[in-house]
Amino acid sequence: MSKRIAGPEIERLIQLLAKVPGLGPRSARRAALHLIKKKDQLLGPLAAAMGEALDKVRVCSTCGNVDTADPCIICSDPRRDPATLIVVEDVSDLWALERASAMNVRYHVLGGTLSPLDGIGPDQLNIRSLVDRVSAGEVKEVILAVNATVEGQTTAHYLTDQLSGLDVKVTRLAHGVPVGGELDYLDEGTLAAALKSRTAF
Amino acid sequence: MSKRIAGPEIERLIQLLAKVPGLGPRSARRAALHLIKKKDQLLGPLAAAMGEALDKVRVCSTCGNVDTADPCIICSDPRRDPATLIVVEDVSDLWALERASAMNVRYHVLGGTLSPLDGIGPDQLNIRSLVDRVSAGEVKEVILAVNATVEGQTTAHYLTDQLSGLDVKVTRLAHGVPVGGELDYLDEGTLAAALKSRTAF
Repeated sequence: MSKRIAGPEIERLIQLLAKVPGLGPRSARRAALHLIKKKDQLLGPLAAAMGEALDKVRVCSTCGNVDTADPCIICSDPRRDPATLIVVEDVSDLWALERASAMNVRYHVLGGTLSPLDGIGPDQLNIRSLVDRVSAGEVKEVILAVNATVEGQTTAHYLTDQLSGLDVKVTRLAHGVPVGGELDYLDEGTLAAALKSRTAF
Repeated sequence: MSKRIAGPEIERLIQLLAKVPGLGPRSARRAALHLIKKKDQLLGPLAAAMGEALDKVRVCSTCGNVDTADPCIICSDPRRDPATLIVVEDVSDLWALERASAMNVRYHVLGGTLSPLDGIGPDQLNIRSLVDRVSAGEVKEVILAVNATVEGQTTAHYLTDQLSGLDVKVTRLAHGVPVGGELDYLDEGTLAAALKSRTAF
């Protein structure tokens, strides 16, 4: 039981900051103190930005992305190719792929993976809306960019099944050696996949 | 130049979160997404807590601590011994000492260390108010809990000088082996100090 060292408002700020991913109880205290010291430059603007995000952020009704507009900035961008759809588990995966800036296409966010034990079936994910989007006819290729985990792969198989009757090509991300990766540190599964999918030099 | 992947409100939230100590550009993105997903449980309460801190936090006019009350919770606590004053550089040091819960006393926050090259002289620190507090007569011991850095020690010498005419005992933190520390990893200065200040077993 430690003594109270500051008013309840500060204690509460520390408690809430500690729940932010990347901060723990100790760094939350340091962060709170930094914010308090930089009241005008940081605490004020951050509180305002959070309030605004709270007001405006919504889930895109087309793809499941989060943004301050609906349809989101990606779905409403006319320069993106509507013929290709990248299916991801989570918005964070969408952001990661966008950072890679590899393709100028649209997305569909599932909102998770199939996990019967956790009560997550097809109805808990945005699968119906994916099938509807593809059925509309404009999409020619669906890239399944799900994680290379058991749940991700199970979900990928289920999606392939659901899309099988439609006139669309279903592809998945390549397995292989990460760029900059050292063979010595890679697992056997990845090495075997990289060998099998070897390409001409 | 990366493409915009979300509305300006979300981009701004990420930019500001990246300035919080403990978060970088990458973890700020993850934190923003987590906050947006937990709108009601985390983003809302955190925005409110920040707004409240912004409104209420002030610097204690007695000791220089930050709190939502002035005098702060420590200065206004009648159970704390007013005869001993711990002088620290920063509020974070005050919090660290309070976590150690070693002494039930009051504090004085300097707000930094003497650093002529950076334009920080005695007038930029809360030194005048320290001398005034001690001159009032109630304080019998001043513990200089400044960092064991060159600047900290310079400041300690200056303070000792300023307090020398007053009826008060000036002490400093002991140097020695950190609890749980291994001798092999300690620098020579610390080991020499620990030997010099050896105590009976």
